[in-house]
Amino acid sequence: MSDLQKTDFSKWYIQTIQNADLMSYLPVRGCIIFKPDGYELWERIQQRFNAYLKSQGIRNAYFPMLIPKHFFEKEEEHIEGFAPELPWMTQVGDEKLEEPYALRPTSETMIGNAFSDWIQSYRDLPYEINQWANVFRWEKKTLPFMRTSEFLWQEGHTAHASEEDARKRTLSVLDAYTDLIENFLDIPVYKGQKTPSERFAGAVDTYSAESMMRDGKAVQAGTSHYLGNNFAESFDIKYLDKDNQMKYVFTTSWGISTRLIGAMIMEHGDENGLVLPPAIAPTQVVLIPVGPWQKNPEIMEKLTTIEESLKAKDIRVQIDDTDSSPGYKFNDWEQKGVPMHVEFGPRDLKNDSAVIKMRDLDDKESVSLDGIEDKIADELKVMQKRLLESARARNKANEYYDIDTLDDLKKHIETKKEANETPGFVLIGWDGTAETEAKIKEETGFTTRNIPFNPPMEKKVDIVSGKPAKYTVWIARAY
Amino acid sequence: MSDLQKTDFSKWYIQTIQNADLMSYLPVRGCIIFKPDGYELWERIQQRFNAYLKSQGIRNAYFPMLIPKHFFEKEEEHIEGFAPELPWMTQVGDEKLEEPYALRPTSETMIGNAFSDWIQSYRDLPYEINQWANVFRWEKKTLPFMRTSEFLWQEGHTAHASEEDARKRTLSVLDAYTDLIENFLDIPVYKGQKTPSERFAGAVDTYSAESMMRDGKAVQAGTSHYLGNNFAESFDIKYLDKDNQMKYVFTTSWGISTRLIGAMIMEHGDENGLVLPPAIAPTQVVLIPVGPWQKNPEIMEKLTTIEESLKAKDIRVQIDDTDSSPGYKFNDWEQKGVPMHVEFGPRDLKNDSAVIKMRDLDDKESVSLDGIEDKIADELKVMQKRLLESARARNKANEYYDIDTLDDLKKHIETKKEANETPGFVLIGWDGTAETEAKIKEETGFTTRNIPFNPPMEKKVDIVSGKPAKYTVWIARAY
Repeated sequence: MSDLQKTDFSKWYIQTIQNADLMSYLPVRGCIIFKPDGYELWERIQQRFNAYLKSQGIRNAYFPMLIPKHFFEKEEEHIEGFAPELPWMTQVGDEKLEEPYALRPTSETMIGNAFSDWIQSYRDLPYEINQWANVFRWEKKTLPFMRTSEFLWQEGHTAHASEEDARKRTLSVLDAYTDLIENFLDIPVYKGQKTPSERFAGAVDTYSAESMMRDGKAVQAGTSHYLGNNFAESFDIKYLDKDNQMKYVFTTSWGISTRLIGAMIMEHGDENGLVLPPAIAPTQVVLIPVGPWQKNPEIMEKLTTIEESLKAKDIRVQIDDTDSSPGYKFNDWEQKGVPMHVEFGPRDLKNDSAVIKMRDLDDKESVSLDGIEDKIADELKVMQKRLLESARARNKANEYYDIDTLDDLKKHIETKKEANETPGFVLIGWDGTAETEAKIKEETGFTTRNIPFNPPMEKKVDIVSGKPAKYTVWIARAY
Repeated sequence: MSDLQKTDFSKWYIQTIQNADLMSYLPVRGCIIFKPDGYELWERIQQRFNAYLKSQGIRNAYFPMLIPKHFFEKEEEHIEGFAPELPWMTQVGDEKLEEPYALRPTSETMIGNAFSDWIQSYRDLPYEINQWANVFRWEKKTLPFMRTSEFLWQEGHTAHASEEDARKRTLSVLDAYTDLIENFLDIPVYKGQKTPSERFAGAVDTYSAESMMRDGKAVQAGTSHYLGNNFAESFDIKYLDKDNQMKYVFTTSWGISTRLIGAMIMEHGDENGLVLPPAIAPTQVVLIPVGPWQKNPEIMEKLTTIEESLKAKDIRVQIDDTDSSPGYKFNDWEQKGVPMHVEFGPRDLKNDSAVIKMRDLDDKESVSLDGIEDKIADELKVMQKRLLESARARNKANEYYDIDTLDDLKKHIETKKEANETPGFVLIGWDGTAETEAKIKEETGFTTRNIPFNPPMEKKVDIVSGKPAKYTVWIARAY
């Protein structure tokens, strides 16, 4: 980690996203403008996830953003969970509405109401749709991309004839999220189940893909909920089964949001700013003429030839032929996280070579012009893997398995704080009670992240009560 | 036109979109659910228009949906124009906000505020961005797709150093809209300038692409606004020019919305339901086995071969091998507007042929299996052109150039009504006064559509005042 990352990670984060021109503040509480370089990251996430949806036959739809109050009140846990942070539309022009509308924080109620209309027979099942939309949660603490009053997300909603089918979908989406987050965004994921107190309001079970940021804090990167019959009962979603009986469907819902952009920044960024995985980078390679290139037209000619052959390989490339100095350009493109830049000047021309610099490596490399397109394509692929491996190594160094009591946890946190290091993720034993969770949170600020599917080891004793542990759980501070 | 289209076009319209499964009603005033078959039409429009934006270097961004009240009040004409139909968010949880937020009806104010931050120097110009978003206008009369309280749209916003550049963009976007609406949606367009009373609130000039529906009524399919310095002055969007002077920018804005889906339905639909232009149809070809096909596996094998070779040609095709009867299938796919179906049974197998049926033609055609993929690809291209030509011919038949007085107009409307025909588009002379427009509207319900760039003829006398006409104008009833 850079010095600023160590001493003031939040400050580093805000500087980084501003220098990379990803967003802009404005006078709407907790909202941001997604500038083109920020928004394009979201568009690329959309493209990638739409491919998964298509492979599964799940189609996109669009539901109204305004949810009538009485819809919201049908599922008790659901309204309780969301009520305090719900924005309400109460008025049109000067006229007060009879019934206010909530600005959707999520669409289970809206879609539950629609499903009860659309689903009549076992032939209609499974019924699986997805929506890309803006949603609203007026939360106290906000942070650009990570937690904003309005954010963009994808919410999938499915209804099934059996619990088994619904649970299968819940988990297969979690795998799809993992694939996207790990292989596209280069963020390693901790898959597991949320504890009851951290469950989605109205869910039977919530599963999450958690990730560890560079500062050791957790981000809930994606969640998938098995909703059982809860919404089916509240919204009367029933179907006529083959045996001529009316039955409730089993539903699921799942989402990822623009917070993934924030996670990507926090995962890979360094002292020079943003670092983008090649797979998602809007620009993958920048070609920069150096030396007295304006006097020698062969240099731009050569660069244009390289640009064209890279484009033919579907590599997103651009030439920076502006007036600024090479040094300014290197710095500018580094701040923007572009995975690779290529320097090319009179000396390179003479030697039939060029200099390449990968964003995440310190050294530059001189490479032959002969076959440079293949070299560049390879280096981008290698970098895509390297970022994930580096992140995995960072995670490993910040995982702690040997903390067995609350006192040890506090000592661990204290020691790390003194060393200006992160307390990271801690694997604990848990007796399954909300009391233990509350106590940990109160005394350390750590929260349960999830009960991992594949824990690195089994913990035997609850960290607070000392009773036998029912579960092995990751805890951490979280965004 | 079909009988129902003639006697009750609205009823036909609602039936058609429901049978085609494009949308669903729900208890939010004037809002609809875009079901997958409806939403995919919008996704395809987005893809097509994004290609134009990319070709122009105009990038997508995303701005907050909630607009602080004081933003809205900065441009007087703008707030006046939108105030009565603005929905307001006034509350979070149980707490009332100090300043309410408008749910955006359009984003000039939000983006004007951002531009004043982002634009500093002539080097920043032109600054051109686009947003895909949901917007809200609480209008009295609503109609699915055509006019809904919440709708989806694209809004482009650009800032330029000169009036000339801004006007150029305003008109080049109008051309891009025309290309999309005519060549993708097969809807002929009347390009022209709006009269002052029909201008966008806050614009200097508004240009529109108007279109004539099958029932002769007009739809404003796309608009592009030249905003001059209006928003630049209200939001203080200034730049330092080369001559070291601070100057106001010239801005434009322009939009198309999900009402294009409504226009497409009304333009092409017939007594059997929806008719989709091949270029936009989610499914272009349906292959339907007929006769006792279950007994002869060769039939499905052959269809699968055809399906694969069509897919290889990027044709969107599917086989309907459900249990329903062929007659039911034909009807079902016709209602959904699929451009072509192919029938294939034992007799066709023997003859090495298949039967094709284009959605917009009555007759079926038997074609050889040899080269059937090319034949299908050709027929789809021909249909794409044919729909546009048919629409042009329909328009031509419903244009009237020889109506010179208000009495004649009323007589024309009366005669057409008695014959159960549409009064269509009427080309009139206009003296340029709001009085004439108001009088026409009051007495006939006709409104000025636009002042065409290329009128079929010049009208010399104002239809109401009898004074010399300053402009030749299209008038019509409108959605």
